Amino acid sequence: MLSEFDLIKQYFVRPARPAPLSPRAQLGIGDDCALLGITPGQSFAISSDMLVEGRHFFAGEDPRRLGHKSLAVNLSDLAAMGARPAGFTLALALPAADRDWLAGFSAGLFALADEHDCELIGGDTTRGPLNICITVFGEVAPGQALRRDAARPGDDIWISGTLGDARLALAGIRGEVALQEDAQQLAGARLHLPTPRVALGRLLAEGALAHAAIDISDGLAGDLGHILERSGVGATLDVDALPAGPVLATCASGHAALRRAYTAAGGDDYELCFTAAPARRGAIEAAGAACGTPVTRVGRIEAAPGLRLTDGQGQPLELRLAGFDHFGGGQ
Amino acid sequence: MLSEFDLIKQYFVRPARPAPLSPRAQLGIGDDCALLGITPGQSFAISSDMLVEGRHFFAGEDPRRLGHKSLAVNLSDLAAMGARPAGFTLALALPAADRDWLAGFSAGLFALADEHDCELIGGDTTRGPLNICITVFGEVAPGQALRRDAARPGDDIWISGTLGDARLALAGIRGEVALQEDAQQLAGARLHLPTPRVALGRLLAEGALAHAAIDISDGLAGDLGHILERSGVGATLDVDALPAGPVLATCASGHAALRRAYTAAGGDDYELCFTAAPARRGAIEAAGAACGTPVTRVGRIEAAPGLRLTDGQGQPLELRLAGFDHFGGGQ
Repeated sequence: MLSEFDLIKQYFVRPARPAPLSPRAQLGIGDDCALLGITPGQSFAISSDMLVEGRHFFAGEDPRRLGHKSLAVNLSDLAAMGARPAGFTLALALPAADRDWLAGFSAGLFALADEHDCELIGGDTTRGPLNICITVFGEVAPGQALRRDAARPGDDIWISGTLGDARLALAGIRGEVALQEDAQQLAGARLHLPTPRVALGRLLAEGALAHAAIDISDGLAGDLGHILERSGVGATLDVDALPAGPVLATCASGHAALRRAYTAAGGDDYELCFTAAPARRGAIEAAGAACGTPVTRVGRIEAAPGLRLTDGQGQPLELRLAGFDHFGGGQ
Repeated sequence: MLSEFDLIKQYFVRPARPAPLSPRAQLGIGDDCALLGITPGQSFAISSDMLVEGRHFFAGEDPRRLGHKSLAVNLSDLAAMGARPAGFTLALALPAADRDWLAGFSAGLFALADEHDCELIGGDTTRGPLNICITVFGEVAPGQALRRDAARPGDDIWISGTLGDARLALAGIRGEVALQEDAQQLAGARLHLPTPRVALGRLLAEGALAHAAIDISDGLAGDLGHILERSGVGATLDVDALPAGPVLATCASGHAALRRAYTAAGGDDYELCFTAAPARRGAIEAAGAACGTPVTRVGRIEAAPGLRLTDGQGQPLELRLAGFDHFGGGQ
């Protein structure tokens, strides 16, 4: 039987990295607390996400993908703040200490952590129904953070990357749409292995290019709604300008309603939605190009409250959209 | 039906406190991340604990007590580091959005949080088997932190407060011992409403009075073992010098073996075990008196590895002790 201490030692404690790689963690796993230093003048940006089997992922999900996704959704929150990743804690409830699962999960987790120089600094393991709780820490200058309440009338609304392929993959798994196997695979990568837009978020914050930002986890319309509500503004969104994922763009040609619904309210995209002054358009295009992340203008922040959807001709659109609510209706 | 947003708003978002009370949280609940400032020259001490129903608490546990205990076990980790509480995140999986449960849980949580000026700055809620994951943040000067690896041969070993009443209460609940109702109640308060020794931990750290420290969650012998292992030292512990809780002291008079087992390896005490140079005895007694927490000397750190238990006459004791391991044998 694998003990709790052996489990942590074998799968989650790694050799200390040389100081230039790890300037922030002053004391890691194995004490009552981890100690983390911070660059003078910076604030800590902190976010927690809890992933529950059967709710956020299917039972039997590949552990390597799950390790990736668990950290990715947290890094995406740092990205939406414009923060630089510094470290994370992992609390894990497991039905059993399964070596194959642990090896896969930790491999997926650490591969993404290393990509972002974000160290595992502590946590907790216990027996229980599968539950993964990650709390991530980043640094950001308080005045540069991309807050939800900072959108201004006249701002452009931008989207990073593409939308809708994650929702399409989910629809394929649920049998709501019929997808060919390669399309399911390709779209599935967006659902299971999301890419947190950390580099873009940092460029937007450090260059003071954007005002407000949020990451799109529950569907663009709902997430943009949080920016509008907290900023006390409204918006018009050109739904036909939304950049569809490559699989959705192919599969939904001729199905405008499906494409519109999945791009405007799909969920699980983990792209950034941000607002910025029109004067910044060139700089934002350049920032996107610099980090290899396409950026697309999709609408305008306005003083009048509410979210107005239009088609490519500027005509009002009615879409039946629902964001994801863990205690309400669901998506 | 209570939505996720309403749930957070009603039970966990509180009016912003005036600036002198809340200098650290620059941005709280409701954005992608919370932003937390830090005093220049300090490090962040960070700890995560996950509490699972049926593992860390009984199904149907009073939610108010559970709110207290969930934060208390985390504050206890800060105490063992000598850190000053700054804030915490709460991730919560709930089988259903039960208003009575939420009202009780949040009341217990916030009562303790306010006592320690430790703000809830963010988190996550989702539906799932009951699981409470708190990550707590504190400040400590890096050179003052009470680390597990800092015990030195010749150090005294100290215990705060008393030991064993929490284990006695558990024994009563399990029917391992028969307790009268008032004794069960009194001992139960130690099990369900532990007192994190934050003030003592800070005095020990800020006054450079102690070398190593740990909080006693899994039983003294096992937790002290972590200090010994990480410090590369051994110890002799006078088991009869261990301060028994008042209920245990009364109920176990004439049952030396029970008293010894519950004080030396009971678990769930959330007292501090710390080591300090003999020259600091007076200052440590004064620190305990200053914060109203009794402190007792119970042994000595030695160069020879291993933990040696003795009785009050210095004779070797053999106790069958087992720490708590979530994946191994259990306690």
